[in-house]
Amino acid sequence: MLIALDAMGGDHAPAPIVAGAVQAVADDAELRVLLVGDQARLEPLLFHCTQVVGMEESPVVALRKKPDNSISRCWQLLAQRKVDGIVSAGNTGAMVAGGLFLKRFLKNVRRPGIAAIMPTLRGPSVMIDVGANINPTPENLFQYGIMGSIFARHILKRDKPTIGLMNVGSEEAKGHDLAKDTHALFNASPLRDAFKGNVEGRDVNRGEVDVVVCDGFVGNVVLKTCEGTFDFTMKMVARELLATLDADKAKAEKALQTIVARYDYSAFGGAPLLGIDGICIICHGSSGDRAIKNALAVAATYARAKLNELIVEELEKDTVVVPVPTA
Amino acid sequence: MLIALDAMGGDHAPAPIVAGAVQAVADDAELRVLLVGDQARLEPLLFHCTQVVGMEESPVVALRKKPDNSISRCWQLLAQRKVDGIVSAGNTGAMVAGGLFLKRFLKNVRRPGIAAIMPTLRGPSVMIDVGANINPTPENLFQYGIMGSIFARHILKRDKPTIGLMNVGSEEAKGHDLAKDTHALFNASPLRDAFKGNVEGRDVNRGEVDVVVCDGFVGNVVLKTCEGTFDFTMKMVARELLATLDADKAKAEKALQTIVARYDYSAFGGAPLLGIDGICIICHGSSGDRAIKNALAVAATYARAKLNELIVEELEKDTVVVPVPTA
Repeated sequence: MLIALDAMGGDHAPAPIVAGAVQAVADDAELRVLLVGDQARLEPLLFHCTQVVGMEESPVVALRKKPDNSISRCWQLLAQRKVDGIVSAGNTGAMVAGGLFLKRFLKNVRRPGIAAIMPTLRGPSVMIDVGANINPTPENLFQYGIMGSIFARHILKRDKPTIGLMNVGSEEAKGHDLAKDTHALFNASPLRDAFKGNVEGRDVNRGEVDVVVCDGFVGNVVLKTCEGTFDFTMKMVARELLATLDADKAKAEKALQTIVARYDYSAFGGAPLLGIDGICIICHGSSGDRAIKNALAVAATYARAKLNELIVEELEKDTVVVPVPTA
Repeated sequence: MLIALDAMGGDHAPAPIVAGAVQAVADDAELRVLLVGDQARLEPLLFHCTQVVGMEESPVVALRKKPDNSISRCWQLLAQRKVDGIVSAGNTGAMVAGGLFLKRFLKNVRRPGIAAIMPTLRGPSVMIDVGANINPTPENLFQYGIMGSIFARHILKRDKPTIGLMNVGSEEAKGHDLAKDTHALFNASPLRDAFKGNVEGRDVNRGEVDVVVCDGFVGNVVLKTCEGTFDFTMKMVARELLATLDADKAKAEKALQTIVARYDYSAFGGAPLLGIDGICIICHGSSGDRAIKNALAVAATYARAKLNELIVEELEKDTVVVPVPTA
């Protein structure tokens, strides 16, 4: 299996990206990686391109003005089926825009969504969408529920994944029209047994449901809020707890470092853009070699699980496609 | 000064509510509290009413069907100027709906917003709105920036409060139409120097700005996400760190308890609904006596600071009201 890796994407590219690729290939005999980037800076395994989309650039403008950028080249390789998947720690908006331009969606998928794996007290769950689609329709959100469930079942190994809709309260009548209409759509569909209704912000890390469905604006803000609050809490604990300890101080420091390392984005290895015909993994901009290695391993797992075939099957069932909302 | 306190509001009402009132009155010689609730369960200092809005009830339906409920009675006391402020740990939606029904807004205020005080690495900041207005206009958000700034200056004692707009990225062109139009509104206003542009979820607890402006849907989800992620992190730390310690275990336990107690909602004492003609403090449903005591103290501080007069002054300045968006 061949994965195109955007070697120029990420705050620290290309060094840790290449290092991560080397580690991933060493761990998986079937995995081959095509590094997409600037030949002058990347000698081995290279697919050459001359341009890079900056992290702060406007995605649409950058993709138009820089046709030979590493993100567009990755997408072209995927579209031409020269690779099985693509991985980038670059500009998230540009990765999504690249996919929307090509429009290589899976059959019946209206819009792809980014699925982030969230740590919870009950093991990992999935939150979808976290930034691909900031103005979704109820049907988009409903499809995210379907795709997220398949991801939870086959990647997170949840037997009967439960689904929750992010809202401002647990009662059915809560929220704006998007939330109410999506709620009705789930309840009128064959997913109604898996659908546990509304969830709230505090339920994400509690692991109340296996799949949290939200619009891309809210999901993106929630994902980054979790990151910020975790960071804030660990800093407070480090500052205030360590100062009170004597004999066990070194042990406590080590334990805190272990917790940070485990929660760290490196551990999750990037978020798949679900709904794309092919595999697309979007990594955190701050990804180091460990994160890239994990993202490539996730891409390989994803290809082996044939997740996309399962999504197409599910969306083709007459009973699931486009239920009519009751509200 | 007289504050009406909803004695029936909150998960554990009325016992801790009354206890908090007693503590608050003991601490502040000028403060008097009118307990609003069921006479049979509350003897002293009572304003009698027979009905209670449940935490899970639809606010609008409950207020209509139960005219003699403690929340509506609090609002009526405020409208008749029989009290200076009202405090409730009850159904947040019903508290807001009660205010919208009476429509006793400050002059030039289009819609009130709930301001939550957020702990950050740089001391407390304010996030507005966290749930009063889930479908705001850009002008509503702009007014939240003005009211939040006055709150940050006079209550949080920030000399020149900075303002940020919650969005999915820091670049100006990011986000949905609401975010873009609000961004333009701030940049075209006299607040442009205080306005630091977009902030992201991770900036809330980092304290990047003193005032985070967001729509009520996003703000509510962010507030609860912070609560959930803090809780998740502290539980992980308690479980995994304490198990590795020997001699200092008791000290570490105590330090963790101190951090939890400080972050706990009790410490913040409720969130003001800004824009109301009068003082309205909304407390967390799980409020105990300490939270109620603090909320009453906050209401008293708020009255003494004459925050509402300052808001009216600011909104009356020709240069601030209704700037025309450039976009």
